[in-house]
Formats: sequence, structure tokens, C-alpha cells
Amino acid sequence: MGAAASGQLTVGEPGTARIAVDLLGGDHAPAVVVDGALRACQADPALHLLLVGPLEAAGEVLRALPPGEQARISTLPIAPGDRVESWVESGVRSAVLAVAQGAADAVLSAGNTGATVTSAALGLGRRPGVRRPPLAAVLPTAAGRLVLLDVGSSVDPDEETVAMHARLGSAYASVVHGVAEPRVGLLTIGTERGKGDRLRRELPPLLAGLDLPGGGRYIGLVEGNDVVTGTIADVVVTDGFTGNVLLKGLETAYAEIGPPHDPARGVPPRAALLLGVEGTVVVCHGAASADDLAAGIAFAAQLHRQAAVAAMAEIETQRGVP
Amino acid sequence: MGAAASGQLTVGEPGTARIAVDLLGGDHAPAVVVDGALRACQADPALHLLLVGPLEAAGEVLRALPPGEQARISTLPIAPGDRVESWVESGVRSAVLAVAQGAADAVLSAGNTGATVTSAALGLGRRPGVRRPPLAAVLPTAAGRLVLLDVGSSVDPDEETVAMHARLGSAYASVVHGVAEPRVGLLTIGTERGKGDRLRRELPPLLAGLDLPGGGRYIGLVEGNDVVTGTIADVVVTDGFTGNVLLKGLETAYAEIGPPHDPARGVPPRAALLLGVEGTVVVCHGAASADDLAAGIAFAAQLHRQAAVAAMAEIETQRGVP
Repeated sequence: MGAAASGQLTVGEPGTARIAVDLLGGDHAPAVVVDGALRACQADPALHLLLVGPLEAAGEVLRALPPGEQARISTLPIAPGDRVESWVESGVRSAVLAVAQGAADAVLSAGNTGATVTSAALGLGRRPGVRRPPLAAVLPTAAGRLVLLDVGSSVDPDEETVAMHARLGSAYASVVHGVAEPRVGLLTIGTERGKGDRLRRELPPLLAGLDLPGGGRYIGLVEGNDVVTGTIADVVVTDGFTGNVLLKGLETAYAEIGPPHDPARGVPPRAALLLGVEGTVVVCHGAASADDLAAGIAFAAQLHRQAAVAAMAEIETQRGVP
Repeated sequence: MGAAASGQLTVGEPGTARIAVDLLGGDHAPAVVVDGALRACQADPALHLLLVGPLEAAGEVLRALPPGEQARISTLPIAPGDRVESWVESGVRSAVLAVAQGAADAVLSAGNTGATVTSAALGLGRRPGVRRPPLAAVLPTAAGRLVLLDVGSSVDPDEETVAMHARLGSAYASVVHGVAEPRVGLLTIGTERGKGDRLRRELPPLLAGLDLPGGGRYIGLVEGNDVVTGTIADVVVTDGFTGNVLLKGLETAYAEIGPPHDPARGVPPRAALLLGVEGTVVVCHGAASADDLAAGIAFAAQLHRQAAVAAMAEIETQRGVP
């Protein structure tokens, strides 16, 4: 990796959140990430950023802030190496390492999903029993927020992987959304017996036998419409291919014509949390806008402030009383 | 099957469309199908229906129409057999047979997709080279109508099957939507090289080499958001599992918060056309409303009147000039 933090961030004032931002990740990096980082800083005075990437891009953020605010920005310079691809991916690797070393509280990247998942699994460690950490997205529904996972980490998962994702998703809904006894559904294409592919036919008995964290319960098969209405499930598990396609379709529909009305809350960030790793890693789409990136940074800060990852780990290890 | 038409419909007056309606198909059959059939009759004076199912259900439609209109209704009674499942599925089999025998022009069913596809393939025959006939849905976008296929027929297709679906979808967009040189995209989860599963990695060279009907051209990988915007593809091919989940999600989102504004046309019917068979077979969701069923019947009538299936077959057999 070869990069070292040029300025260590102040540790742990109450309310402070130190987010390592991958300036190199995303289709329009670094320009759009620079914009997003600035907007996030302007919206949250207790936010500190560790900007990981080319020094000149980090400098743009610094110069745009008033002198009294510049202490909230640290930089971790990365210079182009011989191979462009490894250079770009070293952004997220260095950001993850900064969290592992205690120099930041959470990571935000809009870069390649595979590189982010691998960097986080290696750099932060996976929770016990987790093979492939899933990305969990949050969708607005008229009935409240819905957790959809996986949305791009496990393209072709086996049954055990999806079962673990059901556990992680249940913990997420319990801790982050405050849902008592989350209802967990399996996404398929028809609720008649025998519908769907092999994975969908073999999973229901396995899911029905799980002890889900936070008092979660498996409520059976759900369909694409149930992800929109949110009336029968709080958490929906699926493979990462289907989840990614559905997420990008629904998010774009909501952006074009307005999201479902959720009386209790605003629109959730268009960002996903990587579950099953020992740290807070938030991922934006490659095509994320500056506002999406600012929302992703704010989401990472919120998760850090509520100590969400530790709280999820705690309830994941509790066993239910039969 | 054992059922025979009790009243042959009048053949082929100009503008007349004779639709065989499966009264037994759908989650709320026959009541909701009866309602849908009535609404379709009231909206289209040149519509004739062959009602396939229990006589008492067909009688409800008849009694609700003015005496002078009752000649537009014929019945094909089906009584419960020993096994409920085979009785229900015999509805769509008998409806397909009525088309094969010339007693109706098209089929409408909201019943089990697998039974409909199998009945149509056996009863009407498949087009040359078609292994598994796909279901093609139409979605509204701000840029016009978009054909999404397959949406539930082939859950785990091989490469050759998806390639044939690309050909059939291109013919559909050309004939039914009047698109010159349809742009055909392959749905995946990221356009970087190496993303997606094995199917998605192996298909692009095969699709790029196809001679697509109607002057269609393969434009490469697309994502869930592109199915909503409609700006880069007129036709999107995918496996039937992903297509079904995305379709049900987007249709429900559009029903809850309004569809994308299409300046040229209204909202397309929430019904899919079975492609690659020698006849017109339209499928509604199991959970279809009476309005959905009426729209599906009207769609079947429109396709018959424009001789869409014959026109698609004609351009499918033409070879492009290199």
C-alpha cells in the first residue's frame, strides 16, 4: 500500500465522527467525491474527514472551507502507481486500513464493490460464520423502511450464505431501524410451492429454522411488489444479482417520480452498509451524485455515532430462548 | 381435457376480436376475471369473448350484459374434475385449444405461468429454434415504451435461450411499438468487465454476433436504472427470475406513486405477451385486478387486430443484409 496518514485525526470527541473518504472511487471521481465531501462538511459541524487519494483533489476540499474549519480535514495521499487499476483500488484499501488502525471511524467509497468487500474483509475482519459480507440497502416504503440484501456482493450465493445474510439483516433492522421482531422474507417470483430456482426452493426450510437476532422471524416467500409496499416484511433477502437490479430500478423510479410517502421519516440515503465485518463501511453506487455521496458520508457518521456495528454484533451473538 | 365449445364464435368480421378468457386463472378467480371480462366488453363493442370455465361464472357475465349484447359471449364449460389442480390448469389448456382450433383469436389467462407456457407450446407450437417461449412485459418510461423479457418463463436459462429471447424481443419492439432498429441491452449489475455471473459474462459476444429482426442492434450491458429511464435501450433481456422481480417491483412502484410521464402514450397494460409461439397468448399476474384483466383482454384484441404474431414471424425469418 505504501501510503501513510499525513495528519492523524483527533480521536473520539463526543459526537465527532471521522470518516475516511475514498476520493478515487466512482465513475466521476475525484470531482464528484470532492463535491460530496464538501457538502457533508457544511451540513455537519462535528464531521471530520480523512480524504484518501490524490493530494490535489483533497486540496480542493481544504481550500473551499473557511480557515477555521480546515482542521476537520486530514489527508492520506495516494499517488498513481504503474497500473491504474491497482492505484484506484488502493484508495479503498487505504481507507479501510485507516479504520483498522484507529485513524478513522468509518469508510465511505463509491468504488468497485468487489474491491471494497475484499478490502474490508481482509482489513477489518469478518464476523464469525460470515463467508461473504453482504451489502444491505435501505428502501423507503409507505409502511416504513425496508432492508434489502444482498445488493451486489454475492452474485451467486449458496444457501448458507443467504441464511447468514438473513441473520445480519435482522440485526440491522433491529438496531438501525429500531424494529421489534423484524419480519424477514425471501424474495422469489411466486409464492406457489415449487416456484423459483433451486436456491429459492431449498432455502425456506433452512430460513424457517434460524434463530434470528433481535427477535426476528422468517415470514416466508415475498415478491418484487412486497419490496415496494413494505407491508409484510422489514427485511428481504436475495442473491446479489437480483438485489442489485431491483435496487437500481426502484431507486431510479423513486428519483424520477418521487419515493413512497413515509410519514415518519425522509428518504433514506442511496448508500449500502457492508454487514458482517468488524467495522463501518458504507458504499455508494459508482454513478452516485455529490448529494448521494454527502448522504452516504452522513449515514456513515450516524452509524458510528449510534455504535451500530457493535450493537449488531452484540445481538448476533445472543441466542434466543426457545 | 374433455371440454368442447358450446357456442362457436362468429369468425373474423373486420375489427372483431375473439378472446378466449381463462375464468379459472388467478388468485381471485373466477370473480375478478368475470369483472374484468365485463369491463372489457363494455369498453369495446367489437370484442367477442369465449369464457372458459364454470358455467355459473360465465352466466354472471351474460346476465350483466344487455340482451342485444349477449351474442358476443360464448362459453366453454369446464367442471371440476377429481384433482383440483388439474381442473384449474385445464382452463388455460382449453383456452389454448380453442385458438388452435380456430374458435378464438387469442388467449388471456392470469393462471399459473408454467401451465400457460406449456399449454401454449404444445397446443399452438413453438416458432423454429425456440426452446422456451419467453414472457415479454412492457414498461412505461419517460423515453417511450420498453420491452422487458423474460419475466417468468425461463428461471434459469442457458445462453442460447437468452439469445433467442433477444431476437424475439427485437421483433416485438419493431412490430408492436414501431421502433426502427430496436436497441437491445443485456441486464446486469455493473458495466465493468467481469461483473455479473457466468451467464452475464458469456452472453455479450453471443449477443453481439446476432442478426436481430427489425434492424435491431445489441447495445451492450444495461443496469436496473436503464429499465426505468428507457434512454439507452428499447428492449432489455434477462433471466425470468430477475425479470419477474424487477417487473413486479417497478409496476407496484408505478401503481403507488404514478408511472413515468410518457408524452406519447398512456400506461401500458400490466400484462405480458408470450413470444415464440404460433398464436397470441397474453398473461396477467396472478394478483391482477379486474382493471388489469380488462386491459389484458384489450391488449390481446389489439395484438390480434394488428396481426402482430404473424408480422413478428415474418421479420424473424428475414435475414439482415450484411
